[in-house]
Amino acid sequence: MNLAPLPELTIRDQVERALREDLARGDVTTDATVPMDVEASCVLRARERLVLSGLPVFEAVFTTVDPTLRVERRAADGDVLEPGAIAALVHGRANPILKGERVALNFAQRMSGVATKTAALVAALPAGAKTRITDTRKTTPGLRALERYAVRCGGGHNHRDDLSSAVLIKDNHVAACGGVAAAIERARAFAPHTSRVECEVDTMAQLDEALAAGADIVMLDNFDDATLIQAMERVGGRAIVEVSGNVTLARIPIIAEAGVDCISVGGITHSARAVDLGLDWT
Amino acid sequence: MNLAPLPELTIRDQVERALREDLARGDVTTDATVPMDVEASCVLRARERLVLSGLPVFEAVFTTVDPTLRVERRAADGDVLEPGAIAALVHGRANPILKGERVALNFAQRMSGVATKTAALVAALPAGAKTRITDTRKTTPGLRALERYAVRCGGGHNHRDDLSSAVLIKDNHVAACGGVAAAIERARAFAPHTSRVECEVDTMAQLDEALAAGADIVMLDNFDDATLIQAMERVGGRAIVEVSGNVTLARIPIIAEAGVDCISVGGITHSARAVDLGLDWT
Amino acid sequence: MNLAPLPELTIRDQVERALREDLARGDVTTDATVPMDVEASCVLRARERLVLSGLPVFEAVFTTVDPTLRVERRAADGDVLEPGAIAALVHGRANPILKGERVALNFAQRMSGVATKTAALVAALPAGAKTRITDTRKTTPGLRALERYAVRCGGGHNHRDDLSSAVLIKDNHVAACGGVAAAIERARAFAPHTSRVECEVDTMAQLDEALAAGADIVMLDNFDDATLIQAMERVGGRAIVEVSGNVTLARIPIIAEAGVDCISVGGITHSARAVDLGLDWT
Amino acid sequence: MNLAPLPELTIRDQVERALREDLARGDVTTDATVPMDVEASCVLRARERLVLSGLPVFEAVFTTVDPTLRVERRAADGDVLEPGAIAALVHGRANPILKGERVALNFAQRMSGVATKTAALVAALPAGAKTRITDTRKTTPGLRALERYAVRCGGGHNHRDDLSSAVLIKDNHVAACGGVAAAIERARAFAPHTSRVECEVDTMAQLDEALAAGADIVMLDNFDDATLIQAMERVGGRAIVEVSGNVTLARIPIIAEAGVDCISVGGITHSARAVDLGLDWT
Amino acid sequence: MNLAPLPELTIRDQVERALREDLARGDVTTDATVPMDVEASCVLRARERLVLSGLPVFEAVFTTVDPTLRVERRAADGDVLEPGAIAALVHGRANPILKGERVALNFAQRMSGVATKTAALVAALPAGAKTRITDTRKTTPGLRALERYAVRCGGGHNHRDDLSSAVLIKDNHVAACGGVAAAIERARAFAPHTSRVECEVDTMAQLDEALAAGADIVMLDNFDDATLIQAMERVGGRAIVEVSGNVTLARIPIIAEAGVDCISVGGITHSARAVDLGLDWT
Amino acid sequence: MNLAPLPELTIRDQVERALREDLARGDVTTDATVPMDVEASCVLRARERLVLSGLPVFEAVFTTVDPTLRVERRAADGDVLEPGAIAALVHGRANPILKGERVALNFAQRMSGVATKTAALVAALPAGAKTRITDTRKTTPGLRALERYAVRCGGGHNHRDDLSSAVLIKDNHVAACGGVAAAIERARAFAPHTSRVECEVDTMAQLDEALAAGADIVMLDNFDDATLIQAMERVGGRAIVEVSGNVTLARIPIIAEAGVDCISVGGITHSARAVDLGLDWT
Repeated sequence: MNLAPLPELTIRDQVERALREDLARGDVTTDATVPMDVEASCVLRARERLVLSGLPVFEAVFTTVDPTLRVERRAADGDVLEPGAIAALVHGRANPILKGERVALNFAQRMSGVATKTAALVAALPAGAKTRITDTRKTTPGLRALERYAVRCGGGHNHRDDLSSAVLIKDNHVAACGGVAAAIERARAFAPHTSRVECEVDTMAQLDEALAAGADIVMLDNFDDATLIQAMERVGGRAIVEVSGNVTLARIPIIAEAGVDCISVGGITHSARAVDLGLDWT
Repeated sequence: MNLAPLPELTIRDQVERALREDLARGDVTTDATVPMDVEASCVLRARERLVLSGLPVFEAVFTTVDPTLRVERRAADGDVLEPGAIAALVHGRANPILKGERVALNFAQRMSGVATKTAALVAALPAGAKTRITDTRKTTPGLRALERYAVRCGGGHNHRDDLSSAVLIKDNHVAACGGVAAAIERARAFAPHTSRVECEVDTMAQLDEALAAGADIVMLDNFDDATLIQAMERVGGRAIVEVSGNVTLARIPIIAEAGVDCISVGGITHSARAVDLGLDWT
Repeated sequence: MNLAPLPELTIRDQVERALREDLARGDVTTDATVPMDVEASCVLRARERLVLSGLPVFEAVFTTVDPTLRVERRAADGDVLEPGAIAALVHGRANPILKGERVALNFAQRMSGVATKTAALVAALPAGAKTRITDTRKTTPGLRALERYAVRCGGGHNHRDDLSSAVLIKDNHVAACGGVAAAIERARAFAPHTSRVECEVDTMAQLDEALAAGADIVMLDNFDDATLIQAMERVGGRAIVEVSGNVTLARIPIIAEAGVDCISVGGITHSARAVDLGLDWT
Repeated sequence: MNLAPLPELTIRDQVERALREDLARGDVTTDATVPMDVEASCVLRARERLVLSGLPVFEAVFTTVDPTLRVERRAADGDVLEPGAIAALVHGRANPILKGERVALNFAQRMSGVATKTAALVAALPAGAKTRITDTRKTTPGLRALERYAVRCGGGHNHRDDLSSAVLIKDNHVAACGGVAAAIERARAFAPHTSRVECEVDTMAQLDEALAAGADIVMLDNFDDATLIQAMERVGGRAIVEVSGNVTLARIPIIAEAGVDCISVGGITHSARAVDLGLDWT
Repeated sequence: MNLAPLPELTIRDQVERALREDLARGDVTTDATVPMDVEASCVLRARERLVLSGLPVFEAVFTTVDPTLRVERRAADGDVLEPGAIAALVHGRANPILKGERVALNFAQRMSGVATKTAALVAALPAGAKTRITDTRKTTPGLRALERYAVRCGGGHNHRDDLSSAVLIKDNHVAACGGVAAAIERARAFAPHTSRVECEVDTMAQLDEALAAGADIVMLDNFDDATLIQAMERVGGRAIVEVSGNVTLARIPIIAEAGVDCISVGGITHSARAVDLGLDWT
Repeated sequence: MNLAPLPELTIRDQVERALREDLARGDVTTDATVPMDVEASCVLRARERLVLSGLPVFEAVFTTVDPTLRVERRAADGDVLEPGAIAALVHGRANPILKGERVALNFAQRMSGVATKTAALVAALPAGAKTRITDTRKTTPGLRALERYAVRCGGGHNHRDDLSSAVLIKDNHVAACGGVAAAIERARAFAPHTSRVECEVDTMAQLDEALAAGADIVMLDNFDDATLIQAMERVGGRAIVEVSGNVTLARIPIIAEAGVDCISVGGITHSARAVDLGLDWT
């Protein structure tokens, strides 16, 4: 499957924001010690097994600091890198490379961290499973576009982008409407015809109500394995099924084999650790 | 020790950026299902043991979505909350509360995650130790101010803010100057007199060179316990000592007892997981 | 049906941008001639039959110019106003009212123009028709959020917000994939599970192919009335049907009676004229 | 007459704002279906008679989406295009062309719409008339610079840019000063010496007062043809004369032949429809 | 004469930009030493004779840092303050007052510096002279609106705001057109009818040419006193006369008595020193 | 000593802001009179003795207005230029050169003014003195990065960048803590370990207290020559010594010979006049 690239404008906005934060007032150490005529070549190398994400952002950091720097890609976003594998080379003046290094790594380590965590869940799916691993809206404030891209690099899929792009009815929406059926009906009347209507359910009774009201997607929230299997039977193909809550690596095969369409996992964005990608100077 | 607050302007910038990402095009579900005249009160509650951080940001999210919402604080940033403890109440119209909920939680969960991870390291220090736990520049792009604040909430200290605010000489700077002494001398001539000159050293030989050249701070990079103790003797109070690299919870007492002044840990910002803080609707 | 409000942040961004354009350097005429202590009350009045839209934006212009100005609403967005009807009153210092007047009217006249044009199409639907009138992406650059809101004020519905929020396969996408079926299959594999897959078709053959490939929505592009009726039979409820192209007021009842789900009309945003809403000074 | 170009920075600001609105989160359809190695050439073609405006903006949209795209101009802004005439060619990767197509057309169709509507009024002027057709401040919020440029493309002229760049005294200013003469005197004392003082008049009595007070420009507001001719005699060359209000195509020759210097028309910006300019894929 | 106020939005933009520069990362000294419950009252006092300018900006700095701070004005912009005179009081928490103090003073000292320098030139005008002292476009980049306002506070007038708001033909424009007459004719055909056409002349011959071509304003560039008087006779009231270049305090009465309409002086903005306005803590 | 360059992003931000202020709405004079095909070469020339600063900003103005313009540098920032010396040449189309000329000069004249004023103080230091001339936070709002750079061009050094980057305890901080010692202790506990702690002292008693409390830097505020010499003896090398207040050119050798480490002077930024650098057209 091909990977939808990050828009150029999105990359530029993110890179400029990060460089304003770290470099806009100068780099007193580098300018004191590294003359402009010193050239260098550096290697971006995996120091653990990881799924790469963020190479275009990494590159844009350096070319924004100094348009004469060149980044030579040796791998592509979405590739699995073994420890020691080379992701890219950076060539040019040592002074601006040193100025951009930390910001470039901050992006690549975090984005690859999200991709790697996603890929671990994807790898736990049984062979041939149709089940998707998706993200949620539990992303880092200001970095949603980058993290959604990183999820795709890890083989995952995206859920709705923001509060406007699809309907997801939760318990408080249901309560305000006086019931699942009313909430679904109102949402369908309100939402663009291009958007499916998804409804979160906590019990089998709510599931029945959602199915009867014609929900396009039901989100089974915190169902245990046994109830989940029972729920899938009840659905019987009448709706797309999303599972959310208490998803562990161990449960993924069980959930997938129950025939669930998608498993949404907040942790792939809100709790991914940075992976160890380093810049080696040669 | 009192806690330096986040500047109002910084909070506003972050909150507006995050809301533009999630809400600027509307919330199709909430507007379909929750009339404007439904009132609600919600409770922000710890669902695990955590150190709170980000309450002013959490509050600003709601008041930016709707200035009539009120957030009643029941705890303060820096407080340790036990599971079930209440951090704050949110009162007002259910519709805008639902619109801001996810963004408000994204901030509070992440910032409290950084504070909690920091606090765990701080708690590992021996009683009465003068040693500081500090952050690094390995922060989330665009969120540095918030993460540095969260580190302080957790009892940690901040390292230099950006590349301009202090000198930190690393191996590539040394290489470009032809030696530690030259690098320190150039940096001292270059840097504001308000900034100390810090030099990273990898070996005892480099340490000797840095001390001889009058480094104000030496950063011992990836020293094992034995070498570390030997290094502290060599320093003999002539410089502030920072330790970095391979810092585990178990090593912290050892490092601290060796008399080290500060331990900088990238992981408290680059790999903190979001803690479980939830909004309960009553 | 209730009307989803414009987010406060969106209103503020639009109003500040417009005022920067017109007022940021001052108003030489008003400051020369109107002392700050002159008070005024003005009436926003319809000078033709119109559907009101943009009152919160109109209000925000004045309160941004001077927070002491008060706007008293006498009608609500979505209301039909007959000629002479009062939409709102503006009270306060004449000097800042004069400074904001043109920008406030520019917003209200245009947004009400879109709402009024939309309402004319909606009014042409047969009683009880399920058919929606929707907008397109043919909106004024930079004003999409306001125009989508205005369409809702006029009783219309929104289509997808942007290129990321839903799938709409057009002829060039089909051509690149080698066929309708392949395009639909790839899009389904790619898109969030919350998004329906819509496919534009120009011929009955393409319609058959799209239905066979399981398109959720088919867009019948430039179908004449007879072919449209034939197409609806062929669909037989298997997909949502959208009609686009050459939609005139006269054709709307015919299209609606054929059972079409939605009619998308670029002209309601790209070619609406400003309606005559004026500010009378009393 | 040569045409003042749009500043590069203005084009960039507008294009980036529009692309952030439509494309910043990606194009799920195009990325699913159109591989990056598919090349295309497209033709921007007039589908009705029109005056072209916005070609540099159209071009900047594509090169902002992807700097490798090339736009080959076959016409220039200000040219009259007959139906079928080619304005430009777009060459390069089909994927980014599809992503930018709608935004590029939204700009070109609207700007050409303003130019075309302006040109229709200009064409109604008698041969050799010195009368100008000018815009007003009734422009689309946020797009004033583009619309003023489009007016020039259509052969029109610009009125003052914003509230600071010239004096235009209206009835409320007069009322606050207690008379036309006082208002003109204060404005002259206040305004930069580079700015003329213009005064709107509704009656012959006000016209006399304005002329006596030395107004540089008088704006005859809603004067009928007979009164207009009478007013021109009264002016007798003592002031520049602008006519505004109830200007129809039919009245333009009459107004021009009366010797009026300029006719300002809000409708050329506030109520121009988008013209039919399309992108044909070959 | 009343003083046109700075637009609120302009004040806010300037204040936020300045605070982002100085305070956005916190104030480590103040937060370490000054608890939030310490209250203070400070006095903004003139320490030399000066013309006050910038009080609304001074106030906005403090209320942006902390909305609970109160600034009590004891003087108004444009007032002459003797040494020791009080301009304003600041009341509230000492901590945020200390954080905003430097930025608030930076604005007030600079703006009052421009006003004071302007006022010195204005004071040199003979009693009853109609001559204006005006600014130029030689303003500090990014601060033009504030500096133009400060000029008005000092009793000066503004020249054109930017390159679009009026015509000023200089020698290079003349050279490109092949002569003064051609340049004036083209400019008049091009510029809005609300703008006067000004032409710089270096010699009596050019002056004659400009007058013959109907220039509305002639700028006599670097004319000595004798030639100036001769030039005024030549003009004979046919044009507004501006003098520029080599303007000293001593020459101002001579120039004014020659009947010149306006004297433009770059130095009032490009070379004003900050005046001594201090914040006394009580 | 090498000169730390301005970051590219900082230059771009400043240049775009300034051009938006002056040129964003076009240049009516130049577009009326100078066709696009007229080429020109201009010379940036010193018209008085000056220290050059701002050449990269000067260049960026022209290339932002028109990327085809070329600036050929004939001198470097930090160079002393004698009257008549050439700093740079500008080649390309006359039209965009005229549009950028004023903004480019505004930057170069002001920045060189700061550099020149700084250099005059530096030149007053005795040969071989270790004393630094430094700036303060009394910079033009919004231009701090440029002015700090200009100070370096003049041979000066920078003080702390903003309120977060170093500790500087003043009298109000001391008062709130109840004494110099307490203030220093709290600041040291609070500040990053990379920052020195500086304390302003007004009397010998305060100096003793600050030294006893271990201040890293003492700022002697408004000390006369005799007391200054006495103070230096008291310090005896225990702290870095900064002198501030009432610093005249005549006093600089005396202060330096007393062994002071640095002299901070607000006037080099807050009261530098623009130097005479002009663009000659050939």
